[in-house]
Amino acid sequence: MNIYGKPHKELLLAAQKHCILPLLSRLHKGQAGRVAVIGGSEDYTGAPYFSAHACALMGCDLTHVVCEPNAAAVIKTYTPNLMVHPYLDGTQPGLEKLWALVKRMHVLVLGPGLGRSAAAIAGTESILEHVLNTHQGRIPVVIDADGLYAVARSARARTLLAQFPRGRVVLTPNVVEFERLCDAADITPKPARSPALPSSSSASQTQTDGRGRELAEALHCIVLQKGSEDRIYAPRSATAESAMLVNAQQGSNKRVGGQGDTLTGTIACMLAFSRARYDFELTGTREEGLAEWTDYAMLSCYVGCTVTRECARLAFERTGRAMQTTDLNNRVGEVYAELFGS
Amino acid sequence: MNIYGKPHKELLLAAQKHCILPLLSRLHKGQAGRVAVIGGSEDYTGAPYFSAHACALMGCDLTHVVCEPNAAAVIKTYTPNLMVHPYLDGTQPGLEKLWALVKRMHVLVLGPGLGRSAAAIAGTESILEHVLNTHQGRIPVVIDADGLYAVARSARARTLLAQFPRGRVVLTPNVVEFERLCDAADITPKPARSPALPSSSSASQTQTDGRGRELAEALHCIVLQKGSEDRIYAPRSATAESAMLVNAQQGSNKRVGGQGDTLTGTIACMLAFSRARYDFELTGTREEGLAEWTDYAMLSCYVGCTVTRECARLAFERTGRAMQTTDLNNRVGEVYAELFGS
Repeated sequence: MNIYGKPHKELLLAAQKHCILPLLSRLHKGQAGRVAVIGGSEDYTGAPYFSAHACALMGCDLTHVVCEPNAAAVIKTYTPNLMVHPYLDGTQPGLEKLWALVKRMHVLVLGPGLGRSAAAIAGTESILEHVLNTHQGRIPVVIDADGLYAVARSARARTLLAQFPRGRVVLTPNVVEFERLCDAADITPKPARSPALPSSSSASQTQTDGRGRELAEALHCIVLQKGSEDRIYAPRSATAESAMLVNAQQGSNKRVGGQGDTLTGTIACMLAFSRARYDFELTGTREEGLAEWTDYAMLSCYVGCTVTRECARLAFERTGRAMQTTDLNNRVGEVYAELFGS
Repeated sequence: MNIYGKPHKELLLAAQKHCILPLLSRLHKGQAGRVAVIGGSEDYTGAPYFSAHACALMGCDLTHVVCEPNAAAVIKTYTPNLMVHPYLDGTQPGLEKLWALVKRMHVLVLGPGLGRSAAAIAGTESILEHVLNTHQGRIPVVIDADGLYAVARSARARTLLAQFPRGRVVLTPNVVEFERLCDAADITPKPARSPALPSSSSASQTQTDGRGRELAEALHCIVLQKGSEDRIYAPRSATAESAMLVNAQQGSNKRVGGQGDTLTGTIACMLAFSRARYDFELTGTREEGLAEWTDYAMLSCYVGCTVTRECARLAFERTGRAMQTTDLNNRVGEVYAELFGS
């Protein structure tokens, strides 16, 4: 089945059929998703919480946060439902504990609240290198926020990304992060107006359209370019064309910090489900139809966009301009049920 | 349009037309408000939280708290929706981080829970000096609580205030703080009774009327004199007369700590919206009508008073004498919607 160019409802049906792992009585705890969100620092504790919480509410069995020691106690107080590990302490034992955890994970989210220090950039490089060398790059990594900052700043990180198998890394830049990545990848800047002040959405989307595809090719990653429409680009490979999905479902015009964290968490859960189907074949055999991993990953991103936008729409309908990130983030479970049943 | 002397409803309509930034799909996160509340110490963690939370519920996109390290973890646990930075650590690196944050902010609130130590007073001076010298005093600063204590104690702080452009600094003294500021500014003390025990409201208001105006002139700031009526004074300038607005909307007779923090937070959000309209012209062009920044700032203060009083009225109606600050503070979003729709 070719998913590209299909309407919204068919994409959701395809995700349900191919990506989502049904609840089966024979599955044991952890088979339906083990995800770690790597981020959280002295300055930022909300971001990794929102990402992990969204992932957990999507149905991920076990969701972890790995953060700096001075963020761990705070994140733990937000909820007892997540496991929070203070491994980002700059020591070798801390790193060993991280690698032991990563080995058990199906998906990583890298970057929410990670900070922009030299240590954070070096840490991003180490994690990418470890996943690539120890796990053949098969553990999908969703990179957002300060993780994207590190990718933009580090040529070494970009070299590592280029070696991952196609579709195993997802970048989720907003408008500012997108420009920073284009700059790092030597992609021509947008001609008109400053990126900090985008022009009206249709013009801006037309202008950046080609550049999203270019960025996906240059970094050899799936690039989810967030905006008034979310555009998801997969790079081409020896055997596959480049591909694109556009999600223009209604969201909310109120922008709150942490909406992007809900997105990474929901994508991470969908990627974990997809691995259960594609890599581990927990339902028996793969359904006929989707050609390769990248299609699963693209559908996972599309579902993440859909869930996040619908959460924003519902939260705004309820709270209006007072909408806070928790209002949106707490609705992930309800929206999952609305889209896919229980 | 001359807003002075206009009735309540016309003032709210003017604020809606001129100050409030509509939710536009082309705006990205952070354009509709970036505010930092500077305060929070070992003794006080609620005050900065209430101010920042009120600001966020008014619709500010990104709301930060900058506090002493021993207050940060506690404030973070109140909510994951605010960003809390432990930069007030008395070190040069802490100060550098603060300046980097201030650079991105549209409005500052200075003082809630800041403490009255020599370091807090020196910190108030540094922040005023920095905003004045590095940002030409264009970032509005709402000063309350221990920030007002610092202004009363420091001649240097008062010299700095006098150099800000008109209407960029708002002081929000209660009756005790007002007397302390008058004392510092050599304004004749109120003749009758002790300031700690004001006489009946009408008499007291009549007596202090002239002194509010005098204080605004002496400190070259907007002075919002809180009381049974809130009186908002703008100083005269070379081109503009002194001005006054009075807000006598019904509030509550139950006094809870933190009501003033709700006021500073809501004013800060309105000032951020006003800057988006006046300084950055994000809606395209300015509406015809308001003459200059001070009018935007005066309306912003007026809206803050209205929202806070209505929150107090509703909270008291619901909880009676048991009313707590959270009861009032949590209603900001609902009251915004009631006044301005969504």
